[in-house]
Amino acid sequence: MNKNLVRYVLGWVFVVIGAMLCLPIIVALIYGENDYMYFGLLAAVCLLVGLVSIKFKPKNTQMYVREGYISCALTWILLSVIGCLPFYISGAIPSFTNALFESVSGFTTTGATILGVDRQIEELSHSLLFWRSFTNWAGGMGILVFMLAVISQLSGQSNMYLMKAESPGPVVSKLIPKLRGTAGVLYGIYGAMTVIEFIMLAVGGMPIFDAITLSLSTAGTGGFSIKNAGLMAYEGHYYWQAVVTAFMFLFAVNFSIYYLVITKKFKQALLSEELRWYYIIYAAAVVIIGLDLTINKFYANPLDIWHHSAFQVATFASSTGFASKDFDLWPSLSRTTLMIVALIGACAGSTGGGFKVSRIIVLVKSVVRDIRRMLHPNSVYTVKMDGKSVKEDTVRSIHVYLTIFVFLFAMSVGILSLDEKMDFATNFTAVIATINNMGPGLAEVGPTKSFFDYSILSKYVLIFDMLAGRLELLPMLLLFNRECWSSKR
Amino acid sequence: MNKNLVRYVLGWVFVVIGAMLCLPIIVALIYGENDYMYFGLLAAVCLLVGLVSIKFKPKNTQMYVREGYISCALTWILLSVIGCLPFYISGAIPSFTNALFESVSGFTTTGATILGVDRQIEELSHSLLFWRSFTNWAGGMGILVFMLAVISQLSGQSNMYLMKAESPGPVVSKLIPKLRGTAGVLYGIYGAMTVIEFIMLAVGGMPIFDAITLSLSTAGTGGFSIKNAGLMAYEGHYYWQAVVTAFMFLFAVNFSIYYLVITKKFKQALLSEELRWYYIIYAAAVVIIGLDLTINKFYANPLDIWHHSAFQVATFASSTGFASKDFDLWPSLSRTTLMIVALIGACAGSTGGGFKVSRIIVLVKSVVRDIRRMLHPNSVYTVKMDGKSVKEDTVRSIHVYLTIFVFLFAMSVGILSLDEKMDFATNFTAVIATINNMGPGLAEVGPTKSFFDYSILSKYVLIFDMLAGRLELLPMLLLFNRECWSSKR
Repeated sequence: MNKNLVRYVLGWVFVVIGAMLCLPIIVALIYGENDYMYFGLLAAVCLLVGLVSIKFKPKNTQMYVREGYISCALTWILLSVIGCLPFYISGAIPSFTNALFESVSGFTTTGATILGVDRQIEELSHSLLFWRSFTNWAGGMGILVFMLAVISQLSGQSNMYLMKAESPGPVVSKLIPKLRGTAGVLYGIYGAMTVIEFIMLAVGGMPIFDAITLSLSTAGTGGFSIKNAGLMAYEGHYYWQAVVTAFMFLFAVNFSIYYLVITKKFKQALLSEELRWYYIIYAAAVVIIGLDLTINKFYANPLDIWHHSAFQVATFASSTGFASKDFDLWPSLSRTTLMIVALIGACAGSTGGGFKVSRIIVLVKSVVRDIRRMLHPNSVYTVKMDGKSVKEDTVRSIHVYLTIFVFLFAMSVGILSLDEKMDFATNFTAVIATINNMGPGLAEVGPTKSFFDYSILSKYVLIFDMLAGRLELLPMLLLFNRECWSSKR
Repeated sequence: MNKNLVRYVLGWVFVVIGAMLCLPIIVALIYGENDYMYFGLLAAVCLLVGLVSIKFKPKNTQMYVREGYISCALTWILLSVIGCLPFYISGAIPSFTNALFESVSGFTTTGATILGVDRQIEELSHSLLFWRSFTNWAGGMGILVFMLAVISQLSGQSNMYLMKAESPGPVVSKLIPKLRGTAGVLYGIYGAMTVIEFIMLAVGGMPIFDAITLSLSTAGTGGFSIKNAGLMAYEGHYYWQAVVTAFMFLFAVNFSIYYLVITKKFKQALLSEELRWYYIIYAAAVVIIGLDLTINKFYANPLDIWHHSAFQVATFASSTGFASKDFDLWPSLSRTTLMIVALIGACAGSTGGGFKVSRIIVLVKSVVRDIRRMLHPNSVYTVKMDGKSVKEDTVRSIHVYLTIFVFLFAMSVGILSLDEKMDFATNFTAVIATINNMGPGLAEVGPTKSFFDYSILSKYVLIFDMLAGRLELLPMLLLFNRECWSSKR
């Protein structure tokens, strides 16, 4: 591995986070909070380290797969470690593990929290609350960079099917020369949508600080809220919750669709198979849960039933993780449906997490293909998506992805079960919630509870799962690959 | 599909089950029970239908994949439906669904029961108890036929990796000409091991009827017991339980290993990678659970700790499903370990269920291969097993198997969650227990509970899972494939 190149990339990460740390300083100054001191100090140190580091450009700037993946993993780890320091230094979260958990949860856009048990979220200063929601937004944006610049540029057999040549949307192979331009367009869309959500909430009468932080964490499909009760704190504010529902849904759509819409390729945008299935899964889940709640007479008012069903499915499908109701009290069918929706996850190329709809489509088609092949051994079948053949390499890599996912899942639940305090449903859904970057699970990690009570070991397992889920599994695994670290090639 | 050929195969199934139904008549006569009447009537009808049916041999006896798979699925369904009639007609199990569940559980060697709630197992007559345990034995034997004669002979891209040409052991491609001979050897091993277990139990002082039925259900890795308390009824009888532990372990080993030992190819037998991993997984699980029980001070006597740990891991690894202790009371780590062992399952080519050790090995190696491929895009890597390359088709079919497994799993848990009575841990482990043909799960389907309380819909889902698990998924799925049933080719 070209360690000097990785050092150089991490130098840039220091610069970026140094710049980001200046934002909460502004918030602190506005609200007259003392927090500007440590935010300022941290920002200065990061900028100094970063600027010195990028002064020394490596001779060999050719990035191979290993440098790309390792940089990516280390970037997220570095962001998380630095990002947790404000919580830790300020004393808002006295345990380093808990502060790191919160920070990782922010940057991976998970939204799982350890707050709310020994310390209420409302006790945090405005600048810390802003920083906490901002990590969600930065994480969501980061994942767009990551996908565009790192994965798709480097990996010959990338998993990010939809960003590849076979797909509609911004075709990466053609994009690489003009990568910066496209990234700019995507950030533009991301920023504009965040601003529109903020305006819609503010116009609807939501307090400005609430509207800003809520828009930031919706955009990243993160799920951090500045209230202990989360979105339940806005009980009865149907308009606010409906706006959040709509934007959670929208941020989980493949961003290349918006790119196509902007470039007026409406037909191509409409043809996206992933989008169609995303709609269908969303609608089916809302109907199942709505009927389940109706049959079990959960809320007297049908508006409540369909409003909260639509909200909760949007939050699980997009892996945001907000809760407008304590869904852990819902009937068993509704809870299981939510968990299945969370496992399927968002569209590829969005800020959302989960297994991704496009991967599920390819898996289903590959099973059908194999059955056909078995019945007609002499015929040739290919898996098609959006009318085009999917490369065998892509199909295989998605199968391998599922395999890693299942193994990581089983191992995580196994280690969590060392925690005698927690039951099986808690452990199982805690892993679903973190590996899919969703946020809350059921039972002891349900929407009114927190991850506070887990042991330190369990928290590090969940931290690993959040990072692995966000970085699409491989980068985090490669950290443990000795060959990857060796300087030999 | 050549329906006439399938009809002919099912004719033979009638003959076989007609013959099998004669055995409980003997038991009934010995114990002076009236049950000989309906067993006799059933046997006569089956023999009559079967003998008439096989009189008319189809013109075209060429079996293709679809006929093979459909015959296989229908064979198990037919066995189960006829096999449940003694329970139903005698009134021992008044509900047809429950009787069918019990019969499917028997023939698929699952061992999950609906008895023990409204009716104690001890209330059944000797002939019914014998029939119940005998279904386990017949199912175990049937699976050997199925693997040898149907799957491996027909499917060009079979999942049963270890029975294929790449593997050590009885190489199927070379075996086909002398298939009958080999099948004979395998049945010989199966029968001999059953008899040895019976003798060892009887010599150890176990009542003869207990020893016979227990040997039958151990051999099939089924897990039916003639006591409500299962193997807990033999509390304190360490020798009996140890014998059962050893035989559960042995029946879950690939039978081709025994074939190699008999034909004195000891070196080849020792080289089996699957066997080595099966040992390692078994030993690791016993140690983890033993330490967990020790740390949590579960039993005062270390003998109890290691005895029951060894027993319980053997029963889960082999998918037998006996319980020597109420393991549902064990610490969380132990329970999760047992569930993971159950998911991994037995060796391919044994009577045991689960995902199979060899498939897990291929999956792990394919993940490692893909990571290597990513780091060195221009190199060629193949997945090896027992020193030989595994065909890409085989690797792919195992990935597809995992995909189907995960989908079926999620759908089953989803439908079970309609049952408001049951919690998540119950539903989740009920699906593990049935799809892996294991038997008991945790919580409400734990070793001291039963599947009785599930709704009719849930029971049919679990019946489907037992059949799908036993027949390695595809045959049951093909029942729903319209193309498969059409007479066109």
